[in-house]
Amino acid sequence: MHVSENRLREHLLTNGEFGAIEVEEGYGRTVLTGSKADQRAREHFVEQLNELGMSVTIDAVGNIAGRWVADETDPDASPIAAGSHLDSVPNGGIFDGPLGVYSALEAVRTMQKEGVQPDRPIVVVSFTEEEGGRFDVGTLGSSVATGDLSVEEALALTDDDGKSLKEYLTQIGFQGNGTLTVEDWDAWFEVHIEQSTTLERSNIPLGIVSAITGIKNCNIEIIGDSNHAGGTHMYDRSDALLGASEFISTVNEIAREVVETESEFAVATVGNIEVDPNARNVVPGRVEINTDFRDTDLQVMEKIADRAKKSLARIGKEHDLVTEFDTYRTIDPVSMSDRCINAIKRGSENRDIQTINLPSGGGHDSMNIARVTDAGMLFVPSQDGISHNPQEWTDWEDCAQAGNVLLDAITTLAGVNEK
Amino acid sequence: MHVSENRLREHLLTNGEFGAIEVEEGYGRTVLTGSKADQRAREHFVEQLNELGMSVTIDAVGNIAGRWVADETDPDASPIAAGSHLDSVPNGGIFDGPLGVYSALEAVRTMQKEGVQPDRPIVVVSFTEEEGGRFDVGTLGSSVATGDLSVEEALALTDDDGKSLKEYLTQIGFQGNGTLTVEDWDAWFEVHIEQSTTLERSNIPLGIVSAITGIKNCNIEIIGDSNHAGGTHMYDRSDALLGASEFISTVNEIAREVVETESEFAVATVGNIEVDPNARNVVPGRVEINTDFRDTDLQVMEKIADRAKKSLARIGKEHDLVTEFDTYRTIDPVSMSDRCINAIKRGSENRDIQTINLPSGGGHDSMNIARVTDAGMLFVPSQDGISHNPQEWTDWEDCAQAGNVLLDAITTLAGVNEK
Repeated sequence: MHVSENRLREHLLTNGEFGAIEVEEGYGRTVLTGSKADQRAREHFVEQLNELGMSVTIDAVGNIAGRWVADETDPDASPIAAGSHLDSVPNGGIFDGPLGVYSALEAVRTMQKEGVQPDRPIVVVSFTEEEGGRFDVGTLGSSVATGDLSVEEALALTDDDGKSLKEYLTQIGFQGNGTLTVEDWDAWFEVHIEQSTTLERSNIPLGIVSAITGIKNCNIEIIGDSNHAGGTHMYDRSDALLGASEFISTVNEIAREVVETESEFAVATVGNIEVDPNARNVVPGRVEINTDFRDTDLQVMEKIADRAKKSLARIGKEHDLVTEFDTYRTIDPVSMSDRCINAIKRGSENRDIQTINLPSGGGHDSMNIARVTDAGMLFVPSQDGISHNPQEWTDWEDCAQAGNVLLDAITTLAGVNEK
Repeated sequence: MHVSENRLREHLLTNGEFGAIEVEEGYGRTVLTGSKADQRAREHFVEQLNELGMSVTIDAVGNIAGRWVADETDPDASPIAAGSHLDSVPNGGIFDGPLGVYSALEAVRTMQKEGVQPDRPIVVVSFTEEEGGRFDVGTLGSSVATGDLSVEEALALTDDDGKSLKEYLTQIGFQGNGTLTVEDWDAWFEVHIEQSTTLERSNIPLGIVSAITGIKNCNIEIIGDSNHAGGTHMYDRSDALLGASEFISTVNEIAREVVETESEFAVATVGNIEVDPNARNVVPGRVEINTDFRDTDLQVMEKIADRAKKSLARIGKEHDLVTEFDTYRTIDPVSMSDRCINAIKRGSENRDIQTINLPSGGGHDSMNIARVTDAGMLFVPSQDGISHNPQEWTDWEDCAQAGNVLLDAITTLAGVNEK
């Protein structure tokens, strides 16, 4: 039983034409929630669901679900759901999202073609505004469907033009009623591009996501003395930028050490820095930076933050600087369920597809779903780790293999192989 | 023969009232070229020169010079000049500039009072726009008087309101003719606050400036890969900010090493940094920084820059970054003349005033003057090294002592002691 590579490719290329942008190489698209491109992508997806005789629901925030109940399926059994999202960042690629939606659709088509009769209904889903490209709130649709965000709050969100989600959805005819009842799903699967290079580096075609990493953000403030660069002797300085530089190097060392000894995928990043007065001829008096610590283990995240905090204090003493370390946000890591991980593993083993378990460093709808039901994610290699970019690319063969394993995972949990 | 501490204090406090700003502590003033405050400061200064029977010249860019020719003075002998500037930065202090002008004036008054008849004329000078507070061109008046800047260019300079120096000077009645003929001066002296803490730290009341340091500015560009902070493994990163941080730390080490081994007053500063995209959750892809290397020895400056350049290349290799190191400005150091240095030294020895030789890390009018005639500078301690600030402070006793040594240095070179 095989998902058709050609069909899957056709789906992604066709969907890629909605909001397509001119690019010299690759395939670029901009699909913001409520745009004409979004409307066409949604309408095309609904047509595809109808074509397979699936009953389509649109919920209050525009999440789309197609439900397939075969003759022998128990309509009251909790369904197996799979999908992802169809929106994109501005000038994004054609794989991020649509691959998860259309591989799920093709899995259903394949079951139907092969006359498979699953015990449980199968639901194929596309969530609204996963990228946050319009309202700057990522995984919006799944947050509502899992109760993390109320329908009212979501619909009231406005974009830079002051226009609300409700207005945009109404305008494109995709503002329905109620919300998807994710908590009733027996399990959820999402196929997605890795957006990193772990699979590519190890030359492995499929990744089984073990967990979605948590995030700990800390604000660091370093205060020294702003002084004339010419008049201030090297030994009279309290240089806030020098302190910040040593802190940035130290955070990097801490993270590499943790990667070596404890958690291969832990990451620590200092991505932004604000210097005052930030003038060539003035010893910097004040620096603000923001750290981003991620791992699948909350304790590891805490440990990195704790070591970073201690290092900052030491650097402050050494350089006569006043320092502040303030944690302003901690998002807990979320594990994928063993049931789903094993179903994916079993499928790939049956097909002799090599896999590794790896975490997802980025957030996905699965992050919200895993909090209310069993969830599993399949990663395919991203060429050079590039995503959110027309250069985003995954070989069609890898897409199809992921589709096949998704198919197997769904049939396993939907109670087909038990027949 | 003593300069009166009271008179000198009165001069600085009176002059400090022109453009005075409300401050809780200390004395603040804002005297921008062409402002009402500048006009009043200039008019008051001219009155003081007239009071001493000195002939006053205003040149084309508003530089003010008072010339004293005593009965036995050879009017054709090349004069000894001394002074500084009366303008200030916005919210500046009352010592930076006026101390040099009024200590020179009081030196003349003291000679007259004591019936001293110098062989050479004595010229007391206040240069226009030393701070660059209005037109953003520092040491403007002395640059014109020494031929580094043409009168036309200078008068055509405009401020943020699009108003020219010529307009401002005309408006306050200080746009004269010709330029001061600095090259005809036999020697020049300037008393100034140190604006640093070398004297204060060593508890020495008077510094003899050996040279004004040169400046070498280099632009550094560091290019890595901008990547998702969550998805990019620690070992897959080309983090431009990490590279920049190691470079900043290394530049600091290089400078401290040079200070230990070669040149006590060498300084190296990274004062500004621009990061792209400068977002919390993105590994920085590009960083631009600007270095400021200063020393009294051009070779030492070159050496620091050369070592920094080599370090940057090494760091680039280590972290898989593309780096660029571009020197865009080199201002040569300027030495003060031995004649002037010895005259100052002799004066302070006669008065049992402890001195040290030290460089000036900041630019002054003396920097321009030293290029065309013999120049000497006397530094007095700046409390906590603070300047360009109402907290700027030097004890009156230190001011007066500097005035006395200035007086001795002038009489020495003016050929009084030869009588």
